[in-house]
Order: sequence, then C-alpha cells, then structure tokens
Amino acid sequence: MQILSGKEVAQHVYDTLTEEAEQFLEDFGYVPTLAVVLVGEDPASQSYVAGKKKACLSLGFGHKDYHLPADTSQEQLLDLIHQLNEDSSVHGILVQMPLPDGLDPDKVIQSISVEKDVDGFHPQSVGNLLIGNPGFVSCTPQGVMEILDYYHIATAGKHAVIVGRSNIVGKPMASLLVQKGRDATVTICHSKTKDLPSITRQADILIAAIGKPHFVTSDMVKEGTVVIDVGINRIEDASRKRGYRLVGDVDYDQVAPHCNAITPVPGGVGVMTIAMLMKNTMQAARQFANKEVK
Amino acid sequence: MQILSGKEVAQHVYDTLTEEAEQFLEDFGYVPTLAVVLVGEDPASQSYVAGKKKACLSLGFGHKDYHLPADTSQEQLLDLIHQLNEDSSVHGILVQMPLPDGLDPDKVIQSISVEKDVDGFHPQSVGNLLIGNPGFVSCTPQGVMEILDYYHIATAGKHAVIVGRSNIVGKPMASLLVQKGRDATVTICHSKTKDLPSITRQADILIAAIGKPHFVTSDMVKEGTVVIDVGINRIEDASRKRGYRLVGDVDYDQVAPHCNAITPVPGGVGVMTIAMLMKNTMQAARQFANKEVK
Ligand SMILES: NC(=O)c1ccc[n+]([C@@H]2O[C@H](COP(=O)([O-])OP(=O)(O)OC[C@H]3O[C@@H](n4cnc5c(N)ncnc54)[C@H](OP(=O)(O)O)[C@@H]3O)[C@@H](O)[C@H]2O)c1
Ligand SMILES: NC(=O)c1ccc[n+]([C@@H]2O[C@H](COP(=O)([O-])OP(=O)(O)OC[C@H]3O[C@@H](n4cnc5c(N)ncnc54)[C@H](OP(=O)(O)O)[C@@H]3O)[C@@H](O)[C@H]2O)c1
Repeated sequence: MQILSGKEVAQHVYDTLTEEAEQFLEDFGYVPTLAVVLVGEDPASQSYVAGKKKACLSLGFGHKDYHLPADTSQEQLLDLIHQLNEDSSVHGILVQMPLPDGLDPDKVIQSISVEKDVDGFHPQSVGNLLIGNPGFVSCTPQGVMEILDYYHIATAGKHAVIVGRSNIVGKPMASLLVQKGRDATVTICHSKTKDLPSITRQADILIAAIGKPHFVTSDMVKEGTVVIDVGINRIEDASRKRGYRLVGDVDYDQVAPHCNAITPVPGGVGVMTIAMLMKNTMQAARQFANKEVK
Repeated sequence: MQILSGKEVAQHVYDTLTEEAEQFLEDFGYVPTLAVVLVGEDPASQSYVAGKKKACLSLGFGHKDYHLPADTSQEQLLDLIHQLNEDSSVHGILVQMPLPDGLDPDKVIQSISVEKDVDGFHPQSVGNLLIGNPGFVSCTPQGVMEILDYYHIATAGKHAVIVGRSNIVGKPMASLLVQKGRDATVTICHSKTKDLPSITRQADILIAAIGKPHFVTSDMVKEGTVVIDVGINRIEDASRKRGYRLVGDVDYDQVAPHCNAITPVPGGVGVMTIAMLMKNTMQAARQFANKEVK
C-alpha cells in the first residue's frame, strides 16, 4: 500500500514554481501577481487568505490584499473587481468564499475576467473544462490530478467513482477524468444514490468529496483500489490542545490496508489546493505576458 | 414495453410554442426570431437549416437566413455574428456546424452572445448547465429530458449510464442528469471503457450516443430498463428508394422486448432537437423582452 503524499507533490510544485517565477521575472521584468479579496471577518476565511498570501511570498510571486468590511455593497465589490480586471499588474483574482449575506456569489464570480479566473469558478472556465478547451481548472480537483500524475497512476480505462457532486470538487473532478487523454469511465454519486457501496466497490479509483468524517468504510472499497480522500472534517479530540483534529471522508485505518494507494488527511489533497492556485496564477501571468509580447 | 414517441412529445412542444408565440406577439408586438447562419454548400447542413426554417415558419416565429459562401473568412463570419449580437430584432443565433475548413468553430461559437446562444454550445452556457445556473441547454440532451418528463419517467436515484462523451450529446446529458432535482447517479462511458456490457447492464436508464448502428445488443441491457437511443445512422437498404434507412445505436428489435420503455429511430430523440431549439428561441425572446420592459 502506497501513501500518496500531497505534501511531497505540493513541495515539488512549489520548487518548480519558484524557479519559474525567477525566470519569469528575468524574462519580463515583473512577477506573477495574485489579488486576493476578502469581505468580512470570518476567521476561517482570514486564515485561508493568509495561507494564500504566505504561498505568494514564499514563491516570489506578487500579492495584493483587499480586505473589505462585512457591510460592503454588491456595487462596491463589483467595482473593485472591475478595477482589478483592468489592472495590468494583477494576473489572477481570487475572491474568498463564502461572502457575507447580501452579496451574490454567482454575480461576483461572473464579474471576474475569465483571463484572471485562477479559481476556475467562472461558468466559462467550468464550461471550457468540460468541453476540453484550454482554461483555468478549479484547484482542488486539479490537485487530485497532480497527485495521480506524480505517482504515475494511470486513469485510462479505469473506473473512477466520485462521491460528491459539488461545483468546487465533484463536478469538475468528473469533467477532468472523462476528458480524452484521461479516459476514465466516470461515475458520479451523491446523497440520492441508491446502494452506494455496490457502486463504490466497482471503483478502480475512488474519490470521496462528501464532507462526512469516516464515511467510506472498508466494505465500500474493493481490494487494491486507489482512494483519494478530499474530505477535511473536524472531529472532537480531547487529546489535542485545540480540542479537535482533522480527518477525511474515508475511515483511513480501516480502508488503507485494502488499498493499492491512498491519500492521507491531513497531508493529502488538502495541501494541493493552494499549490494549484499558485500554478494557475503562473499560467495567468504567462498568458498575459504572451499577449503583451504580441 | 412502452415506445417513447419523440414525435408525440415534439408535437406537444410545438402546440405549446404556437400558443406562446401568439401570446408573445400580443404582449410585445413582435415575434421570437431565430437567425440561422450557414457557410458553404454542404447538402446535409442545407437540409438541417431548411428544417429549422420550416419549424420557425410553422410556429409563427421570425426567421432570418444568412447563407455565406464557402470561402467566407473568419473575420467576415465574426463580423456577421457581432452584427446579429447587436441586432435587437434577433433573439437567437445558430451557426450551422460543421464549418468549412479554415474557419475556427470554437472561436465562432464563443463569439455568439451568451444571451442568444440557443444551441447551448458557448462555454459559458456549458458551464452554467454543469453548475446548475439558468441558461441555454444544448438541444439534443434537453430533448431527452423532455421525453422522460412527458412520459413521467423519474430519474432520481436511478443509475443513468451514458455511452458517448461528445460535447453535443454525452457530456451535457450527464450535466443534466446529475443536477439536484434530477438526481440520477450518472456513469459516462466511451471507447476507452473496459467491459462496457458490465456497466450498461447496471443502467436503469441507458442513453446511447455512440454513432454506431445496432451497437447496443440485448446482452448489454438488464430486464426492465429504459433505453434512450440518440444515434442516427444510415445503413444500406436496397428495398428503400433512396438506398438506405436510418437506424439508431441500439439493436431495437433485439433490445426492445427487454425494456420497460424505449425510443424508436426514427421518431424518437431525433425529432426533439429542433423542437428544443424552438423552445430555446422562445426563452431567448422572453429574456430579451423582460429586459426591455425593465
Ligand atoms: N482544499 C481541499 O482539499 C478541499 C476543497 C474543497 C472541499 N474540501 C472538503 O471536501 C469535502 C467535500 O466538499 P464539498 O465542498 O464538495 O462539499 P459539499 O458541497 O457539501 O458536497 C458534498 C457532496 O457529498 C454528497 N453527499 C453527502 N452525503 C452523502 C451520502 N450520505 N452519500 C453520498 N453522497 C453524499 C452530497 O450530495 P447532494 O449533492 O445530494 O447533497 C454532495 O454532492 C468537505 O469535507 C470539504 O471540507 C476540501
Ligand atoms: N438530433 C439528434 O438526435 C442527434 C444530435 C446529435 C447526434 N446524434 C447522433 O447521436 C450519435 C452520437 O453523436 P455524437 O455527435 O455524440 O458522436 P461522436 O462525437 O462521434 O461521439 C461518439 C461517442 O461514442 C463513443 N464511442 C464510439 N465507439 C464506442 C465504443 N465502441 N464503445 C463505447 N463508446 C464508443 C466515442 O468515444 P470516444 O470519445 O472515446 O471516441 C464518443 O464519445 C450519432 O449517431 C449522431 O448521428 C443525433
């Protein structure tokens, strides 16, 4: 059984990006730059935003922080985004979700220029991904593919079963795996799926994106499968100083012995998301630079 | 075994749309209008375009025909589309595919205003469909849903197996069926799928969009399934005046006795596509009218 270390893969991505950022600066005289917009004071969001800033700084990327008060109006937020769309020193724009009540996340996402949509949440990015056009791929599912590639886990002809159909994980995951070149047979399951274990047991690659701790048990997997655990759940743990620990959607101790390979939590998919955001920002900067040169 | 008559469903759609078009004219003083752009002299395309015109006329919709020579440049075609995007008397725009060599279909599709994209092929429409946002749904898969709805075939909790992953049928079909409210468990298969019969035999609803005559045989379906045959294939038939006849991707005679319900070819899904194009054109006109009123 192989443990698929997201930490190792992310480190590899960061090493590559650090070199690329240096080269980019040499070639073009500026650095790939990400603008991060945070509205309100949600502590989890603040910590995510801080993580993104830290990643930018450590890679030598540029970083612009926009922290707006919780009572920001839709118009004010859209104004800022339009400004960032026009700002040639900004290559990627990320608006931290969730937004405070009263702000329309769909309208906000759609206002981001598709060229700067490094989160890959704009409908046009989502469509480009499903069609197979070039474009930005949403970070978490892209991180899963990066792990599979790093460990040379082929997907062609494999039956990939995805549990979860969210717009940020399940659906773009399916879009990626079904493309020509990836060539998996893809099944998408969700809370309305009947006899889920009979389907998950068929998986050569099982991707859990459910949001329920220890949901996937050993009776739900076949011997020798590859398990990708996207879940990040807090469960109470009195033995930890902070009173909880993070676990995935998979009952790791029970399932891992039956797997050919499995991602742990933490240290699996979770750490890939910001790495892929940085990769997308590099891609955005490159596209901008290539356009400028023309 | 029930035969799912696309002909009957399409007639029902046309009856509704005829009434709606009358009401629309009364309410707004103009009719829903479709612009159809044909480039070159491909006989099949000419016949498709003629079918769309006929449908518009019979429903009391407006219709504008643009027939450009095969040597039209990309710029000329894009100019026309931009003009139609701006033209307030045009609510839907359809560019007949395939385009002659030298024209870039992706660029052309992306130049159509999302508000007038009645074919549902623009990446933003494709993304909106997958996300679950309102927008135009590609006509053939929408026609399949219309048939299922008309015959009260529920999809929730059913295992829908789609064979085919094209951008015009397989992928948007999966997008529709996996949405909340539709709630099917969805499997997408294609030419790289291993042991296809073992998967298709699990289908409560089997959708064949392969493009190979009689491909789905009775050993590939379970007893009591619902089969939707999207395929339209010509096979030689000396007994017919034109020398061929149309058959689906399903070996109907063999498979039908095992089904709970099945669409025939012809008279099944095929006739739905233009009906859905007309429905989308009505939707486009309504959205335009509602915007005007505001
Ligand atoms: N950076 C990262 O690694 C990262 C990023 C995003 C998310 N996550 C984690 O991944 C997990 C999923 O996130 P998400 O945003 O996709 O969650 P979500 O939007 O809540 O979606 C959860 C999905 O799981 C399905 N589900 C719930 N209960 C189920 C059941 N009993 N059987 C089968 N399916 C069931 C739901 O079905 P319905 O659609 O029918 O409700 C839904 O499609 C969470 O733990 C989240 O923290 C991690
Ligand atoms: N108005 C209508 O009713 C309408 C509209 C559109 C299409 N159609 C008909 O529907 C059929 C499909 O059209 P399309 O445009 O989707 O065709 P397409 O683009 O050629 O796609 C065919 C799909 O079938 C898959 N496939 C081919 N051989 C297979 C095999 N042996 N096993 C499993 N999968 C296989 C292909 O897999 P790969 O991706 O791996 O190649 C591909 O995904 C055609 O007969 C077409 O005429 C009808």
